[in-house]
Amino acid sequence: MDNAVILLSGGMDSGVLLAWASHRYASIHALCFDYGSKHAHKEIFMARRLAQDYGAAFTGVELPFINELFSSSLLQSGEQIPDGPYRSDSIASTVVPFRNGIMLSIAAGYAETHRISHVLIASHAGDHPIYPDCTREFTEAISRAVTLGTFIGVTIEAPFSGYDKRRIAQIGRDLGFDFTRTWSCYKGLEVHCGTCATCLERKYALDYDAGLDPTRYLS
Amino acid sequence: MDNAVILLSGGMDSGVLLAWASHRYASIHALCFDYGSKHAHKEIFMARRLAQDYGAAFTGVELPFINELFSSSLLQSGEQIPDGPYRSDSIASTVVPFRNGIMLSIAAGYAETHRISHVLIASHAGDHPIYPDCTREFTEAISRAVTLGTFIGVTIEAPFSGYDKRRIAQIGRDLGFDFTRTWSCYKGLEVHCGTCATCLERKYALDYDAGLDPTRYLS
Repeated sequence: MDNAVILLSGGMDSGVLLAWASHRYASIHALCFDYGSKHAHKEIFMARRLAQDYGAAFTGVELPFINELFSSSLLQSGEQIPDGPYRSDSIASTVVPFRNGIMLSIAAGYAETHRISHVLIASHAGDHPIYPDCTREFTEAISRAVTLGTFIGVTIEAPFSGYDKRRIAQIGRDLGFDFTRTWSCYKGLEVHCGTCATCLERKYALDYDAGLDPTRYLS
Repeated sequence: MDNAVILLSGGMDSGVLLAWASHRYASIHALCFDYGSKHAHKEIFMARRLAQDYGAAFTGVELPFINELFSSSLLQSGEQIPDGPYRSDSIASTVVPFRNGIMLSIAAGYAETHRISHVLIASHAGDHPIYPDCTREFTEAISRAVTLGTFIGVTIEAPFSGYDKRRIAQIGRDLGFDFTRTWSCYKGLEVHCGTCATCLERKYALDYDAGLDPTRYLS
């Protein structure tokens, strides 16, 4: 079996991807990026613990320049995060410009250093309308650039790119994945707020209304 | 006229690109990356001064994770830089994995933040056999990824990709560019060593043998 590098945010999508990949790769190197988001401390705690759960090597990568130079309400330097469901007008403010491209490029350099040719990301179909660097077309294009730009021909793989978040939740359940060991909320409070766009997505994905969501929410 | 972001290393290629771009863009944002190379202090000094010379906004971006996590003799954490001319076997040790991909991705995010759709890099034909992330194919592929992954459709442009270093030197001379305000040597001593691969390239490009190279060399 090959080895793989995985982008592990501490969210439910990359958590399930780690569980999924643990059955398919000999060893996994998890990279967790701190780009100065408001919920970074919660995410990174979860990511580190998930890596331990699945026996993956964990590396934290700090990108302080994003918080200093880029604009987004997701960042500590940004304005307030809008409440309510995902809509292109309100959620656009939470986009961190080219975040996935930056993280994948760094992961590609890390993978080349360790002679690992697979880099995995948990991009999925639910992301597509909002974030341009989450689409399947983007992932294919950056994979081609990464393959051309490395000696060993690293590839970027997004195994969940055809699935929505609800299907990812089902894959997690089938793998016995513990969703309480992941963090979604953009606000980074003590518990999930339950009202921001990503909490609403999480509730939908984990079927909160049917009582299947084990997450503790503020409301 | 549009605005542009330029990757400015402080070397002669990106210096000439800055001079070239100063006639074509209304305002220029120069990004200079410190990834922990042995010659970083010399390069960054030159880059900052070049930006001043040409009235470009200057931003230094520190990438400490490269020195910590990646392997290359170019890095402070790496082994000794080999002497002598560029050959794939000796120079391979100086490759910083996917360096251009990482810098271009960050520049794309920066450009999107500032609503600038042009990112310029001084990749040229002389680089191609050695560095996989300097080829024209690579630049086209990463440009496509960047265009897909940003709202405003940022493009990566390498105006010198069809030229060799000697042609770039000629463009610089035609623009009255002062080559003593650039740094090439990988060793980062007080003056250019004159014997490392990149000094030999510089001597060739600036026609040292014909007495046209204004650089002060150790030997």
